[in-house]
Amino acid sequence: MENLTMLTDLYQLTMMQGYYVNGCRDKEAVFDVFFRSLPFEGGYALAAGLEQVVDFIENLKFREEDIAYLKGLHIFQNDFLEELRNFKFTGDVDAVQEGTPIFPYEPIIRVKGRIFEAQLLETAILNLINFETLIATKASRVVSAAGKGPVMEFGLRRAQGPDAGVLGARAAFIGGCQSTSNVLAGERYAIPVSGTQAHSWIQCFSSELEAFRAYARTFPDNCLLLVDTYSALDSGVPNAIKVGLELEAEGHHFQGIRIDSGDLTYLSKEARRMLDEAGLTQAIIVGSNDLDEETIFSIRAQGAAIDAWGVGTHLITSKDSPSLGGVYKLAAEGENGVFHPRLKVSENISKITNPGIKKIVRFYDRAGKAMADVIALEDEVFSDRKSLTIFDPIQTWKRKTLANFRTRELLQPIFRKGKRVYDLPSLLEIQQYSRQELDSFWDEVKRLANPHRYIVDLSSKLYDLKQQLLLKIHNEIKLNENQEVE
Amino acid sequence: MENLTMLTDLYQLTMMQGYYVNGCRDKEAVFDVFFRSLPFEGGYALAAGLEQVVDFIENLKFREEDIAYLKGLHIFQNDFLEELRNFKFTGDVDAVQEGTPIFPYEPIIRVKGRIFEAQLLETAILNLINFETLIATKASRVVSAAGKGPVMEFGLRRAQGPDAGVLGARAAFIGGCQSTSNVLAGERYAIPVSGTQAHSWIQCFSSELEAFRAYARTFPDNCLLLVDTYSALDSGVPNAIKVGLELEAEGHHFQGIRIDSGDLTYLSKEARRMLDEAGLTQAIIVGSNDLDEETIFSIRAQGAAIDAWGVGTHLITSKDSPSLGGVYKLAAEGENGVFHPRLKVSENISKITNPGIKKIVRFYDRAGKAMADVIALEDEVFSDRKSLTIFDPIQTWKRKTLANFRTRELLQPIFRKGKRVYDLPSLLEIQQYSRQELDSFWDEVKRLANPHRYIVDLSSKLYDLKQQLLLKIHNEIKLNENQEVE
Repeated sequence: MENLTMLTDLYQLTMMQGYYVNGCRDKEAVFDVFFRSLPFEGGYALAAGLEQVVDFIENLKFREEDIAYLKGLHIFQNDFLEELRNFKFTGDVDAVQEGTPIFPYEPIIRVKGRIFEAQLLETAILNLINFETLIATKASRVVSAAGKGPVMEFGLRRAQGPDAGVLGARAAFIGGCQSTSNVLAGERYAIPVSGTQAHSWIQCFSSELEAFRAYARTFPDNCLLLVDTYSALDSGVPNAIKVGLELEAEGHHFQGIRIDSGDLTYLSKEARRMLDEAGLTQAIIVGSNDLDEETIFSIRAQGAAIDAWGVGTHLITSKDSPSLGGVYKLAAEGENGVFHPRLKVSENISKITNPGIKKIVRFYDRAGKAMADVIALEDEVFSDRKSLTIFDPIQTWKRKTLANFRTRELLQPIFRKGKRVYDLPSLLEIQQYSRQELDSFWDEVKRLANPHRYIVDLSSKLYDLKQQLLLKIHNEIKLNENQEVE
Repeated sequence: MENLTMLTDLYQLTMMQGYYVNGCRDKEAVFDVFFRSLPFEGGYALAAGLEQVVDFIENLKFREEDIAYLKGLHIFQNDFLEELRNFKFTGDVDAVQEGTPIFPYEPIIRVKGRIFEAQLLETAILNLINFETLIATKASRVVSAAGKGPVMEFGLRRAQGPDAGVLGARAAFIGGCQSTSNVLAGERYAIPVSGTQAHSWIQCFSSELEAFRAYARTFPDNCLLLVDTYSALDSGVPNAIKVGLELEAEGHHFQGIRIDSGDLTYLSKEARRMLDEAGLTQAIIVGSNDLDEETIFSIRAQGAAIDAWGVGTHLITSKDSPSLGGVYKLAAEGENGVFHPRLKVSENISKITNPGIKKIVRFYDRAGKAMADVIALEDEVFSDRKSLTIFDPIQTWKRKTLANFRTRELLQPIFRKGKRVYDLPSLLEIQQYSRQELDSFWDEVKRLANPHRYIVDLSSKLYDLKQQLLLKIHNEIKLNENQEVE
């Protein structure tokens, strides 16, 4: 990936100069990446984007032209710019693996290091994680709605710029799509690519039949014909059947047809009947045209005869929820490895952060089903020998006792002292891992509408710490004194 | 910009091999880029993305590794891949200038050339034009809602990937934003950058007052303080006033405060009162936090004391309408410079395309106000010496007679025989041009809600051509013969 060092908000650099000037550039900090609510009113999200974050961190370097540009802004000091010239990330990063089902408030990435360095990472990490996590999650929903029918990602032309098309295709594959139309994404990430012909192909020949025959001559064993340029049932399907029978007579396998407009349910049922009557029972029908998980669910429920789905705009832009609100918040601050927990208060209770250096513990029952996650302080240990009572951090009377559990910690070490200590899995491995992990969740958590809310609680220790800090800040503001948060 | 040759849908390449194999790779074609409906239920869109399209076309080249990747897919022939190795665009491109107000069905980019070449351009052109046009349009709405208060684009962390952040900042500037927080966008496109400090800065010091003082020491002449980390009115504003007075006492100008949460109307009014009472009447108040054109309009209508606006997620993702449905449709097809008009029919009347090689003519009245656009065939001439009656292409009884007009053709030559013949304007020139052009439209067309529909009609000649072709196709399908569209 290209050098994204300058892909940051100006205020990261002004703060960095501030730390530098005020002699606290070696101050250390811990930042958490988390989001506050699930997109699509769904039951889970799938983490994605870590590989790009790793690339970003490994390629961090201010080039000469960057330094020259910053100098030209006339807000930065020369000695600070010298410091940037030698900038490297020397801290620690922990993160959940890509493809992991994740939930609100869980610290899915944790950055620990000199605040001077950690501050710079915020914007690019959020940009990459927010988008890919959003699209992987959307794709997972679309794939789930499609059942056994494979989903092909088709959205490049409507994606929000080139990277959105390429990284979106990557995230869509993590979420379970089978292929992409995007050749650059295929080349870069080894995603299977798919695609045949557009309406312009059909229009460029003197007749639809001639256009189909020309395509069949070129790709006799990979011939999927787009049938709705003029009229799907009156013209496209009859012509496709002619060409399909010609191909089969020559010993080729006719792949099938694609319908890209109109009433997909009605047209696919009729097309299926016509294909079957002609003996082309093996020919498949691909449906596309402004699909998302809801339309696919509904079209399937109506008994459409669609075998595979092409999904574009709604998937690649996550149209009904085009942003994930992931944030990067200070959780602790210190010096020489001694950290003090910090939190940000807000009148909006959902915006109060969780303080301290934390981890995520997932509890499974004996059958391997995920029961609950607990956000805990890093040094906490949960023994499977005794039962554990967890409680909702807002409605604290809502309690659940876990017993006979197995636990798994979700955060993995990715960087230690600036060196990568994590082997990046292949995209196919990520897709497979994600499918397995999703299998460990109850269907009720995964359903598209009104899912069961998966339990994510705070450990008692973390809960108590948070209450103490809140009380302290509250008293300090009341006394109208200077605020100390520790 | 990087080489985006592979940023395409696989079907462009399979069709190209099809043209190659079927001996029609020198067949010529004309494709139009247009969209069918305005985003945001607004009254206009602003064209953007042409500079990136120019870069894309000028950098077209299949690299060795691209050819090797395509070979490995086992669907392309060696002689076709050899042809790709030497691929260049040798055709003509016409386009409306960036920043131009545009409307549905207008061919905002027209590509004319060997179909083998023109086909490859589709996906990347749509990707770039769809996104930037969308964001420029959204920004124009936000800027219009903000009145005289400048708008700063803040959305990078929620943008759909790195390019979306950078190209989005560019498009937002075209739409009238004053600055961006995005340093890479600033460096690449000479957009003014802005930004001061985040909540984490405040939290990193032992008190809010100490954090403010440290920032003031670092940037005494550029000191805008974020006041809502603990409590805006109880703590942030009083501390900011202390520091502001200290700065002013030392002869600096205190810039002001930013409020990033809570009730912006109430908080800004109270903060204004407190600042004024302290004598800091020149200090400005910046508002941010999930703003879009509607919230800004509403906050202003409530009398909020906000001088400048930071707008993030809603702008950079165009949250309420995150895709523009621009398409690339065949309009004519021919050989040796002789073209035959083509159209695509559809049961959905809005999806029937306009045939032939076309242009856009904008009609202005004597006062310089835009009255209507007419989509006409390329060789049509409209004399301002006689009046012209235009009519709605669907509701043909809706007629309007234009007289005393001045006309302007919107399409500009960009490439001729593969060579660029257009000087790219600077981004600032584009922004200024766009503002001027918007000034030529009635406010009723530009208002945010329920705008007046600007007239875009077809010329009589184009209308008649379209009707003829439709009738011909209809008869052909009825006869259940092979279809010829000409």
